[in-house]
Order: sequence, then structure tokens, then C-alpha cells
Amino acid sequence: MKKTASLAIIASTLALSLPAAAQFAKPEDAIKYRQSVMFIISQNAGRVGAMVQGKVPFDAKVAADSAATMEFMAKLPWGAFGEGTEKSANPTRSKPEIWTDKVKFAELAEKLQLETGKLNTAAKTGSLDNIKAAMSGVGGSCKSCHDAFRSKE
Amino acid sequence: MKKTASLAIIASTLALSLPAAAQFAKPEDAIKYRQSVMFIISQNAGRVGAMVQGKVPFDAKVAADSAATMEFMAKLPWGAFGEGTEKSANPTRSKPEIWTDKVKFAELAEKLQLETGKLNTAAKTGSLDNIKAAMSGVGGSCKSCHDAFRSKE
Repeated sequence: MKKTASLAIIASTLALSLPAAAQFAKPEDAIKYRQSVMFIISQNAGRVGAMVQGKVPFDAKVAADSAATMEFMAKLPWGAFGEGTEKSANPTRSKPEIWTDKVKFAELAEKLQLETGKLNTAAKTGSLDNIKAAMSGVGGSCKSCHDAFRSKE
Repeated sequence: MKKTASLAIIASTLALSLPAAAQFAKPEDAIKYRQSVMFIISQNAGRVGAMVQGKVPFDAKVAADSAATMEFMAKLPWGAFGEGTEKSANPTRSKPEIWTDKVKFAELAEKLQLETGKLNTAAKTGSLDNIKAAMSGVGGSCKSCHDAFRSKE
């Protein structure tokens, strides 16, 4: 059952990513698109992370806005990892494994969407404890995907 | 009445932009953030624009996804135009007028949010004619702001 559900999720992620992949005029655009999305996610994660770590005062509105942005953005980059976007004039830290281990990549792509969804739900409660718990899931999702699919530099 | 409503919108836009502005660790991050947002908007506008111009077949789902992304993204860049982000190591096409004519800039920022909201509503109808009409508003909004506040290169 779990396997079936998981495969359904992957199939849906891959299907979702197809129309978008076809929309880029050139590989450079796709690379810049996914990098732009990731940068926006990372900046918002940094804002929430700083509150979770007590480095800045908790601001429920900023946290909620950032979480909503993270959830929305987490849907966007996957269509920009299409065939032919492995390399280009723009430097990229994407590992070749993205295109050779698509099932795992799709699983981790889905995981980010699930975890940022949980974070958004948590942030709407206005509770820093809830946000802290959910950010742990988001952070783990980022790390597992970057460890597997992003080169160090 | 119109003036009052307009000022209320501007005040709300400026207020919204303040917390975000405080969130960037350095000016380079703010510049990269707003450029990332604008790039994502432009790519999605390009997708919808290609359908409106008949260059690619109309795909209601892609148009709706792009319009939703444009509306969401249109909220994001303004907090990244804070004081101190006029120049940095990163090249920027932002004109100084952004910081000297803040009222006009805020009006045009608000206009983009209104027009992309209309586009999103139009795209949900699945009618290319509705989308075409709304895209005209979005395009006008982009152009008027770029003419006033973005340098040619």
C-alpha cells in the first residue's frame, strides 16, 4: 500500500513537471528558473530558521508569510530539471544523479512539498513550538536532497 | 475618495514591505531576491503571452498555473527594494528613482498585484479571450514600471 501510494505521488510529480519543462526557451532559462526558486526558498527558510534558533525575535506574521511562500515555491522548481538542462553556460550545482535516479529525486521533491505544507499549517497556528517542529522536517528534507543531488560547489 | 483609497493602498504596500526589508542579511541578497522574483514572473508571463499571441497552443492548465504563480510572486519583490539596496557587487538595473519617487513606485507595485490578480481570475475561467484581456493589463503594468524604474541595461 505504502509503495503504491508513493508511486502514485511520484507519477503525479513527474506528470506535473512535464508541461513546465516544455515551457523553457533554452536550458539557461530552466537553470536560472530553478536557481531563482531555490534562492527564494532558502531566504525564507533563513528567516524562519533565525526565529526558531532564537537569533531574531519571533514575528508570527513574518513566519507565516515566509512559510506560505516556501510552500508555494516548493511546487515550482521541478519542471525546470528537464532533459537537456544538466549543463549550460550558467554554472550549476545539480548532480548528474538528478537525471539518472529520477525516482529518488521525485520522492525528495515530493517530500519538500509535503514538509513545507506542514510548515505552512504550523505557521498559521502562530505557535513557535509548532513552527520549530515543522522546520525540523523541512530542514531534513532540504538536507537529504542536497546531500544526494547537489554538489558541494 | 479615489486619492484616499490610493494612499491607503500605498501605505499598506509600504507597510507590507518593511518587515521583509529587514530580513535580508546583506544588500546582495535583497537584489538577488527581487531579481529572482522578477525572472520567475517574466518566465510565466512569457508562457501565457505565447498562448495569447498564438505562438503556442492554448493550454488552460498551464495558463492557470502560470497566472497563479504570477499573482503570488507579484507580492514578493517589494520588500527587497529597501534602503541600502540601490547598488551592490551584483549588477542591478534598478534606477535611483525607485528610492526618490517612492509613492509612484508603490503605486506601480500595487498595480502589478491588482493586474496579476485579475489575470489569475481570468485564467480560472479557462477562456483564452478573458486571459488575453487580462494580459493586456499585466503587460501595461510591467511596461509602465520598467519605463520609469528600470534602466535599459
